Amino acid sequence: MTEPVDIQNDGVVTSRRRFLRKGAIVGGVVLAGSFAGGEALGAAANADNLPPNVPDWMKTPGDAMGSQPYGAPSPFEKSVVKNISNNLPQYLSASGRTPLQDLDGIITPNGLFYERHHGGVPTIDPAQHRLMLHGLVEKPLIFTMEDIRRFPSQSRIYFLECSGNPTYKKPYGKTASDLVGLLSCAEWTGVSLKLVLQEAGLRPDAKWVVAEGADSAALTRSIPIEKCLDDAMLAYSQNGERLRPQQGYPLRLLLPGFEGNMNVKWLRRLRVAAEPTYSREETSKYTDLMPDGSAREFTFVMECKSIILRPSGGQRLDTSGFHEISGIAWSGRGKIRRVDVSVDDGRSWQEAELQEPVLTRALTRFRLPWHWDGQTAVIQSRAIDETGYAQPTLTELLGVRGDNSFYHNNAIWPWRIAADGEVTNAAA
Amino acid sequence: MTEPVDIQNDGVVTSRRRFLRKGAIVGGVVLAGSFAGGEALGAAANADNLPPNVPDWMKTPGDAMGSQPYGAPSPFEKSVVKNISNNLPQYLSASGRTPLQDLDGIITPNGLFYERHHGGVPTIDPAQHRLMLHGLVEKPLIFTMEDIRRFPSQSRIYFLECSGNPTYKKPYGKTASDLVGLLSCAEWTGVSLKLVLQEAGLRPDAKWVVAEGADSAALTRSIPIEKCLDDAMLAYSQNGERLRPQQGYPLRLLLPGFEGNMNVKWLRRLRVAAEPTYSREETSKYTDLMPDGSAREFTFVMECKSIILRPSGGQRLDTSGFHEISGIAWSGRGKIRRVDVSVDDGRSWQEAELQEPVLTRALTRFRLPWHWDGQTAVIQSRAIDETGYAQPTLTELLGVRGDNSFYHNNAIWPWRIAADGEVTNAAA
Repeated sequence: MTEPVDIQNDGVVTSRRRFLRKGAIVGGVVLAGSFAGGEALGAAANADNLPPNVPDWMKTPGDAMGSQPYGAPSPFEKSVVKNISNNLPQYLSASGRTPLQDLDGIITPNGLFYERHHGGVPTIDPAQHRLMLHGLVEKPLIFTMEDIRRFPSQSRIYFLECSGNPTYKKPYGKTASDLVGLLSCAEWTGVSLKLVLQEAGLRPDAKWVVAEGADSAALTRSIPIEKCLDDAMLAYSQNGERLRPQQGYPLRLLLPGFEGNMNVKWLRRLRVAAEPTYSREETSKYTDLMPDGSAREFTFVMECKSIILRPSGGQRLDTSGFHEISGIAWSGRGKIRRVDVSVDDGRSWQEAELQEPVLTRALTRFRLPWHWDGQTAVIQSRAIDETGYAQPTLTELLGVRGDNSFYHNNAIWPWRIAADGEVTNAAA
Repeated sequence: MTEPVDIQNDGVVTSRRRFLRKGAIVGGVVLAGSFAGGEALGAAANADNLPPNVPDWMKTPGDAMGSQPYGAPSPFEKSVVKNISNNLPQYLSASGRTPLQDLDGIITPNGLFYERHHGGVPTIDPAQHRLMLHGLVEKPLIFTMEDIRRFPSQSRIYFLECSGNPTYKKPYGKTASDLVGLLSCAEWTGVSLKLVLQEAGLRPDAKWVVAEGADSAALTRSIPIEKCLDDAMLAYSQNGERLRPQQGYPLRLLLPGFEGNMNVKWLRRLRVAAEPTYSREETSKYTDLMPDGSAREFTFVMECKSIILRPSGGQRLDTSGFHEISGIAWSGRGKIRRVDVSVDDGRSWQEAELQEPVLTRALTRFRLPWHWDGQTAVIQSRAIDETGYAQPTLTELLGVRGDNSFYHNNAIWPWRIAADGEVTNAAA
């Protein structure tokens, strides 16, 4: 075993440490023909037993076991939190965004999962919570959480996205989180809604299921019976553990690919009906006002979309040369088939690599190696899902929808990289 | 929209509430031919607009947005924490186990990921952290974290397991977490180690890579070059966010399927060598003492294994009838091909359903529907991986290894269910 050596008193290494410090200022020396940096050591340093300087945190014992029975991120990551607007109209009807540009992969940790609620977050005792299933069923039922957990379970990785993500009108957000941070992805565990409906027995005229939340807004949405008999779930766990209060503890509806608000949290009631209920969230909100004054209603599905997260608004490229372009794509209609990336303001496109496994209605991570020449550039991504639908440009979308619409903006979003490396929203 | 109705003053419903309370004692009424419970409402209650009682938490606004910029579980889940032994020999060399029996799916939330460290948990400033790559390379290199993050990235879902999980000798643990809680699974993001080694250029006699951690134990392990050029990663993110301090922040080695301690945390040095280094963790620990007095050394791979989590030790079945048997299986050699479950003390076996996607060297969730007749039963699972290797019984394993061995116990673990529903460790 090679003992770690403190090299403070070694003349050769001291001079290397000066070089290191100098190197740190320019952000690492990039080697010709290589992917990324790393500083080449001088020939004198190429000895078998020469470690880097022994840092202070190796010289004393670290934190003891048990200081965090439920862990937390490093104090050096304290700025990676939910992105909460300072000018909320009312604190109860509010949202907190996932800091997408700081995350990797496709799983959103539960502590950073996006939030949106209409009457604050209730604190629900799961032993007191009930789910009632009634209306056009043969056998109305009330379930305890224990009852729900006794059904056969399933686990699925799905994204969840607010329908107002982002807005159509300026000002547009500065960062990826500002723009599309009402988006997260998790592994959900729960029960097939179809199984629960079969338990009660649907009557022939059952066409909708009206779901009600146990929050002070009693958020209520109508779901077409076809979705309820397809992939809809009653979810009680998220990324292994029970749902967080902000995500509907102890029970939520999960409608893969449908707009976030329909995935009713704190679920307490399912009323099977012949017609939709036209709740507040189906009339005054969550309809799309068209240029001709008509409104699209019941626009359930979140269409195919993507965004580049690295580099993205608010970040800075410290040096020209190799950079990986990385982002996420998703579609409420199924799997992502392809993501194209342009680094020349949309003149040409290259196909990005998709990270396996590519799952239906889940985030899909894409990547493209890129050599930045240090000049101004506009980069953007365009996703195509398995139905063949391609993500539109903002101009195309506004041409069809106008800008009175508030929801379902799935436009391509370009980032501008200045010659000094600063990344900003190219559409802002 | 149906307004939620407070039904405290409704005579019919009050009597139903009494029934509910009575029902709660026996754990829900199980309907004939059905999977799970749910209480049938009387015919009088089968009205379209009769909701369950309006709970207190609907009557006042809930918690405001922003009270938790980084979220936390519900206060009702406060007992779901890492399982930390009370009789640790020294607080710095300690472990905290994942409460597997309380979790669903395959992703372990970062707050509950298992821990094992040998010199406490260092608090490392990522801006100060360096990774040195030297020894039998053409071009020794020192990397900052920024350098590491500029390499092309990859994301993979892999399990991680301590090699001493569980012990061979009694007393055996009471719960699944006591037994095999030094096991978790996450989506990791980082850089292919092969790519980083190629950057430095391997010399022809490079056969091992010696990895050193920046903790006060300077934990050091030797890795065969074949693994380093295969699926080994330098990981900086876990379930989307940066590694937690307990999991090696800001950088760890990830060797899919290899025993946990080799996945060196707080990674600061990679020395390429012709021979292994025979560090403390390769001599006094992490070798397997055989009955004949010889020791197996460099036993890297965690063999195929599984355990039933529901029902499992410490739990109780409240009622006979339908129960889903659910558990996890994993193999350091690749994908799980099949899991068999026995509910009759090993006399017969049934094939369980595997939750898709089944990923290499990741946890795989399995499930089997089961009708418990209310009599004493012994249940157990047996996993088979894609190499055809089948998990052995404890008797078979002890026959080959003896009980001087401490590591790599992958035996089948049976649970006994008593007539009163109490679940205990059948091998204890």
